Amino acid sequence: MTKMRTEEDLLGQLELPEDCYWGIHTERALRNFPISGNPVNPALVKALALVKKACCHANVELGYLPGDKAEAILAACDEIAAGSLSDAFPVDALQGGAGTSTNMNLNEVIANRAVEKLGGKKGDYRMVHPLDHVNLHQSTNDTYPTAIRIAGIQGFRRLSASVAGLQGAFQEKEKAFSEIVKISRTELQEAVPVTLGAEFSAFAEALSRDRWRTYKCEERLRVVNLGGTAVGTGLTAPRDYIFLVIEKIREATGLGLARGENLMGETAHADAFVEVSGILKAHAANLIKIANDLRLLNFTGEISLPPLQAGSSVMPGKINPVLMEAAMQVGIKVMANDGIIAETVSRGTWQINEFLPLLAHALLESLDLLSRIDDLLAEHVLQIVPNRDRCQFYLDRSPMILTALLPLLGYEKATELIATFHRENQVNVRAFLEAKLGRELVEKLLSPYALTALGYRKEKSSLE
Amino acid sequence: MTKMRTEEDLLGQLELPEDCYWGIHTERALRNFPISGNPVNPALVKALALVKKACCHANVELGYLPGDKAEAILAACDEIAAGSLSDAFPVDALQGGAGTSTNMNLNEVIANRAVEKLGGKKGDYRMVHPLDHVNLHQSTNDTYPTAIRIAGIQGFRRLSASVAGLQGAFQEKEKAFSEIVKISRTELQEAVPVTLGAEFSAFAEALSRDRWRTYKCEERLRVVNLGGTAVGTGLTAPRDYIFLVIEKIREATGLGLARGENLMGETAHADAFVEVSGILKAHAANLIKIANDLRLLNFTGEISLPPLQAGSSVMPGKINPVLMEAAMQVGIKVMANDGIIAETVSRGTWQINEFLPLLAHALLESLDLLSRIDDLLAEHVLQIVPNRDRCQFYLDRSPMILTALLPLLGYEKATELIATFHRENQVNVRAFLEAKLGRELVEKLLSPYALTALGYRKEKSSLE
Amino acid sequence: MTKMRTEEDLLGQLELPEDCYWGIHTERALRNFPISGNPVNPALVKALALVKKACCHANVELGYLPGDKAEAILAACDEIAAGSLSDAFPVDALQGGAGTSTNMNLNEVIANRAVEKLGGKKGDYRMVHPLDHVNLHQSTNDTYPTAIRIAGIQGFRRLSASVAGLQGAFQEKEKAFSEIVKISRTELQEAVPVTLGAEFSAFAEALSRDRWRTYKCEERLRVVNLGGTAVGTGLTAPRDYIFLVIEKIREATGLGLARGENLMGETAHADAFVEVSGILKAHAANLIKIANDLRLLNFTGEISLPPLQAGSSVMPGKINPVLMEAAMQVGIKVMANDGIIAETVSRGTWQINEFLPLLAHALLESLDLLSRIDDLLAEHVLQIVPNRDRCQFYLDRSPMILTALLPLLGYEKATELIATFHRENQVNVRAFLEAKLGRELVEKLLSPYALTALGYRKEKSSLE
Amino acid sequence: MTKMRTEEDLLGQLELPEDCYWGIHTERALRNFPISGNPVNPALVKALALVKKACCHANVELGYLPGDKAEAILAACDEIAAGSLSDAFPVDALQGGAGTSTNMNLNEVIANRAVEKLGGKKGDYRMVHPLDHVNLHQSTNDTYPTAIRIAGIQGFRRLSASVAGLQGAFQEKEKAFSEIVKISRTELQEAVPVTLGAEFSAFAEALSRDRWRTYKCEERLRVVNLGGTAVGTGLTAPRDYIFLVIEKIREATGLGLARGENLMGETAHADAFVEVSGILKAHAANLIKIANDLRLLNFTGEISLPPLQAGSSVMPGKINPVLMEAAMQVGIKVMANDGIIAETVSRGTWQINEFLPLLAHALLESLDLLSRIDDLLAEHVLQIVPNRDRCQFYLDRSPMILTALLPLLGYEKATELIATFHRENQVNVRAFLEAKLGRELVEKLLSPYALTALGYRKEKSSLE
Repeated sequence: MTKMRTEEDLLGQLELPEDCYWGIHTERALRNFPISGNPVNPALVKALALVKKACCHANVELGYLPGDKAEAILAACDEIAAGSLSDAFPVDALQGGAGTSTNMNLNEVIANRAVEKLGGKKGDYRMVHPLDHVNLHQSTNDTYPTAIRIAGIQGFRRLSASVAGLQGAFQEKEKAFSEIVKISRTELQEAVPVTLGAEFSAFAEALSRDRWRTYKCEERLRVVNLGGTAVGTGLTAPRDYIFLVIEKIREATGLGLARGENLMGETAHADAFVEVSGILKAHAANLIKIANDLRLLNFTGEISLPPLQAGSSVMPGKINPVLMEAAMQVGIKVMANDGIIAETVSRGTWQINEFLPLLAHALLESLDLLSRIDDLLAEHVLQIVPNRDRCQFYLDRSPMILTALLPLLGYEKATELIATFHRENQVNVRAFLEAKLGRELVEKLLSPYALTALGYRKEKSSLE
Repeated sequence: MTKMRTEEDLLGQLELPEDCYWGIHTERALRNFPISGNPVNPALVKALALVKKACCHANVELGYLPGDKAEAILAACDEIAAGSLSDAFPVDALQGGAGTSTNMNLNEVIANRAVEKLGGKKGDYRMVHPLDHVNLHQSTNDTYPTAIRIAGIQGFRRLSASVAGLQGAFQEKEKAFSEIVKISRTELQEAVPVTLGAEFSAFAEALSRDRWRTYKCEERLRVVNLGGTAVGTGLTAPRDYIFLVIEKIREATGLGLARGENLMGETAHADAFVEVSGILKAHAANLIKIANDLRLLNFTGEISLPPLQAGSSVMPGKINPVLMEAAMQVGIKVMANDGIIAETVSRGTWQINEFLPLLAHALLESLDLLSRIDDLLAEHVLQIVPNRDRCQFYLDRSPMILTALLPLLGYEKATELIATFHRENQVNVRAFLEAKLGRELVEKLLSPYALTALGYRKEKSSLE
Repeated sequence: MTKMRTEEDLLGQLELPEDCYWGIHTERALRNFPISGNPVNPALVKALALVKKACCHANVELGYLPGDKAEAILAACDEIAAGSLSDAFPVDALQGGAGTSTNMNLNEVIANRAVEKLGGKKGDYRMVHPLDHVNLHQSTNDTYPTAIRIAGIQGFRRLSASVAGLQGAFQEKEKAFSEIVKISRTELQEAVPVTLGAEFSAFAEALSRDRWRTYKCEERLRVVNLGGTAVGTGLTAPRDYIFLVIEKIREATGLGLARGENLMGETAHADAFVEVSGILKAHAANLIKIANDLRLLNFTGEISLPPLQAGSSVMPGKINPVLMEAAMQVGIKVMANDGIIAETVSRGTWQINEFLPLLAHALLESLDLLSRIDDLLAEHVLQIVPNRDRCQFYLDRSPMILTALLPLLGYEKATELIATFHRENQVNVRAFLEAKLGRELVEKLLSPYALTALGYRKEKSSLE
Repeated sequence: MTKMRTEEDLLGQLELPEDCYWGIHTERALRNFPISGNPVNPALVKALALVKKACCHANVELGYLPGDKAEAILAACDEIAAGSLSDAFPVDALQGGAGTSTNMNLNEVIANRAVEKLGGKKGDYRMVHPLDHVNLHQSTNDTYPTAIRIAGIQGFRRLSASVAGLQGAFQEKEKAFSEIVKISRTELQEAVPVTLGAEFSAFAEALSRDRWRTYKCEERLRVVNLGGTAVGTGLTAPRDYIFLVIEKIREATGLGLARGENLMGETAHADAFVEVSGILKAHAANLIKIANDLRLLNFTGEISLPPLQAGSSVMPGKINPVLMEAAMQVGIKVMANDGIIAETVSRGTWQINEFLPLLAHALLESLDLLSRIDDLLAEHVLQIVPNRDRCQFYLDRSPMILTALLPLLGYEKATELIATFHRENQVNVRAFLEAKLGRELVEKLLSPYALTALGYRKEKSSLE
């Protein structure tokens, strides 16, 4: 039989297994919120451990916390920040309570791990107390939002690198496909000739904007309300601590964090998260659009996506663009998460936002999903194979290649030519034009160089 | 060192641990989709096992499958449907491929488990083949949507019971609070007097509509496309099997499933899921509204929500309405999932919906979340305590109680009275009215009976 | 110079042009809400006029209102319900105040029109008073939601007819295209052969579900809270009026309306609108999916959409699938409106929903948009032209037609054949198969009849 | 009888009233899209007129367009940009066709107005031709997105000013309320004491972020694809024109526009609009949150919102927070529009985004709505009145004021005091504390100065 220890809070007593790292507040939360079955995102737990570490550093340096307790607390924080004790944070991601349960989970686990290090038995909070020592001069309402921002910045850095990788993959293909002329399409109808390389450069361009955006998000998240305690006024925290702790959190995280100028405003309004989530949504919209474009190019046969798995249990040989579908699903999910984030922010009441746990869950999930799919897509894009014959086939039969000759021919001559083409029941527009205008001229006007140069040179019109 | 076996598909060979239940198709999916980290919802796996069972039954009865293989397959299906082997279904919930990977995961695990039962070694598909035997006369495109519907119906049945439980809790409080008169409020301003019981009866009424709606969803989901194979035409399946398998799936599930009349239409358009998700959203909207109402009543002090946990690490004694917050978060999440479902349905292309995996994930998650929060809320509501004094306090000072006397007094007299009240700088409207009109009359007009009866009786006006 | 009249309310006096039909409450609303620039949906104004008419009928029949005033009021209501005086309802659609301003707008215009009919001057409310006579025994909180439901039911009836029209158009094409065999596609890859007619029958099938759903919405909206006055208790209304008015509203509208059993529950929770909006979203999802399918079929050239307008100012002869794009935009807008409706419902507080004006605007807009686009699409679909050659072209070159022969050949033989096909570098699969298996057999198996029959007959396997 | 003229395009002929400014392409669009009943946003029409003007300037300067035609075109553009001829742009906002119809509407009206100026009859396009002259070297695909960006920047400038106005209003109240001490609240439960001024400063702070964000949006929108013609390659436009036109559009608009470096990428991906719409959503979330906070403060009675209109047709004297409700509705609508924008962007195909008309409509509507509501709110906020007594009342009875004394007393002493307080059944915490600790000390610790200073000074602890 498991040996138990007893803990007590203002609602009464609970029994806990003797070796349990968490305490009564965590245990109550576990029982109160058996909702989603998903624990809090590990990145948030680690970030909060760093916050606790910074607070401890500030407290010990200013003499508010004895050195031995502090050392044990700091060691425990380091372990958690490194990913240890991950089973000790089981509280549901959809917890109510504005993050209090996660904060208490950290406080209790750090306290018990510190007690253990100091040779005590778990639950002996006289040695290290979750509130009086670990949480000293802190509130859920300043530490928890600060941790979301730290985990957010880390996630955006990772994502920014992943976006860059995907951009690079498209740029590589831009070069590789630069000589392949094909027909473009607008509104699912053929338009003017372009190169396949230019088409891929457009994808790369969209991602370069995403890269810039995601990179800039750090700027939006770096202002934290640490030191503000319950509602941003710093009540119950000494002023010197408030000034020092921001330096300590910068050290602990290596991030350029800054204290907000109006901590009540930072604490009451979570709008910064809507802003950065909007950036994730812009990236998601690009991903959906690009993935759909690629599977459509794969459908026309102008490119071949790399085969990943058999696509049917009935039709032998069928290979589907499954990673494109996965990417589109990720995009849809990120858009839904963006809705969640705006919703939670708009529903906050008075001095804090009580729905931060859901917000944090959605934001960190979106960051994770996007980083992973970008990495997968980058590898995938590098293996895309162009099908020159198919590009040529669509191009040659399209009356739209005449547009490339318009500056040379003028509208009237062009219209006359196309009428002849149709009258003669021909199918290959290019062959027809070469017969009429000479192969050299047509080739020159439909060369990759001519098509990707911006506009035509005026003198061309006089070539005729 | 783990001993390995080799499997092969059209893309080549892969090594798998000898004792691995899944095969090469599942393994490829695992490598292709390291995206969300969440496996497919277990309810979907179980439902698909039931589908496989029904197909096997039909095949063996019609002589398409030998009895020994069939028996082993059926036994494996039963195990999975009962929750065994749950570790053998690791494919990511956000997989691309329209569900093929989950279907193949089932096919492979069932085959290997059946082989094992027949005394063979995993991977020896000559004994039981994932495609030729387990998947015989099936396609992902008919089995997988059918399984989503089955898991959906089961989820709706569970949810319907949970809603009924919550409705019951409110009805119990409706009775218990039937004598407590209080002021109502519209647009966050005081309105006419009502009873606290009537307020709770309104919650119960909203939930009774939810109960009816969730109950009716079964009707929307019971038409399945099983037998339609790849695109709903049943190509490659024998007609007698198509007719029999629907009976078998009814037996296997105990649900009143029916084959669609136009299986191509059933296969190509997933709109039924938008419809039932809309019902979940209606329930979510009610939950958010009710949870917010309850925490506001708790804020005014007219009721006390049961304390669940300490609410602050700084402010001793603070207790927050955390379950209400959790319920609102669930509601927000369900609304976001509804967006996902409509989105995936609208983005399907031609003969099937390629985004069903995300749809299934969102739908089953919403069903799980709502059932759990309803159960938690039901228990919570039963412990709500009314605060009669506070109800009385707000009521007595509110000029709005005059509206209850309007039919008796008429507007002019009422306006005159309220003017006097203000002129005399009184604060207790009721005491003032009792002094003016007699206590008995006021009590009668503000009695719970008078306030909850629908309208007033004509003769009252002549009472004066 | 315009002659002015003066009106007064509890906030003071305002000047109004002498011939202005609305009064001070409307005028204040006009000044308070210069927000969207869009007036209230005319369908809502007309429906509210019918509600006012019914209330007046009940009041006069029970003796609460003198006959001459009542007659003038009834005549004014009839005019407005018929679309007259439409300029007299200028209050912004995004008004705050839970509909009070629209209700007062109706009360004032009806009163002034009635005064006019009785020979008085506008503003002489002694003759007919907006509140004492027109609004007698009513509240915004029962008349306004009732009017939304009436306008909603009317909208759903219209929409249901429009959906039926579109379904009919697809059914006509189903018949016309029943003999055209083509390749189907799943996940944007070729799948088994089908007929173009069957593809259109799938569209028709999805719409038949939409038709049923929209038809059933009336059932969800027919329960009204008329008679409940401020919060559903009917306070200040006599009981006989409450019982009679429901009969009168049935007469006035010709709809099968019923009084809710729990009027407080009806008044406090607007969930019914989420439910019916979910139905609109299901239809929208179908429309987006179908419109996209059609423009993709137009892109492959298997069908030709009717040309509607020149598509480019640069590329002569370009015709785009513009109505499909418009339909998709409508779908997207309806989905956004669905989000608005759920949002407003979930944000209601206590006894009423204060955001009904936005809800009404979104709901009625969606109904209007869908009816109109369905009518346009129906006409458009009827003019779709099939391109048999193109269908044949894709079909004949697709290895997927082998699936139709699988029951006959078995997998092994089929695989052998396809290998030979590739080895011989052929391009026309059908020609190849006819050479190998005989033309008659291939034609039979690829006949429209064989492909649309559900499954194959067992004896076929023995044909070989 | 109206005299008619005949126009012709590739689909045939149409009759138009002789004095009609628009031509056949506009007329077809009118007939094709009777959908929403709302015309294109006037700001977009005006912006497109500026684009046309810039193109004309570039063309005439480089000799592509004769001076007399150019002058007439420029004059027509100026008129339209100034708001004239607004009836001549009736095409539906929900048009399909990627903006072609709006572009042609401009081309035709400008041409006919120019013809008129040159003394010709409308429809005589030999004088000035909609395509050959007005649209010279342009495509819908570069002019239309450029116009959306111009109208967007103008809208953001206006909005930024409106946000600043609202921020200013809150800052004025921040100062005015700086001495009013009150209780704060988190999770709808009382928290630590603050000042009402600090609460309003938090609102101002959130708006200062919104102001910065909306201001920065110009940077996101200033890169245009003008000169890229159909797909961004500038095909059919001369290079010197492409280089000059960007200077001309800067002149015409006075905005710091720049040509994108990768015009194909700019043309194919509309992600910038998702980014700026996300900023609007962040502002909307703040507005909803703040409006809800204010109506809740009005509910507690700690502030009084200015009365705007009578709030009930039944309950005399009821005044509701109607502008707050309107603001929340605007916020909800803007959030829905944000969903529309992301949706349209993600659904673009290949070289352009075919859903820009809906995107433009949603974006410009959101900008309009937010500017208007911000202006209304600013005026409203300035009239908010604080209720000092009510603030005092809540404060004095709240045990939470003890938190302000914690640094002085320590937890143990504080707990002891509160226990005594409850034991003695007192109700006024402050009076109790003053009796125990001395009035001066309590007043000092609960002074506005002490409460708004960040943290406490260390020496305080030694005061005891």
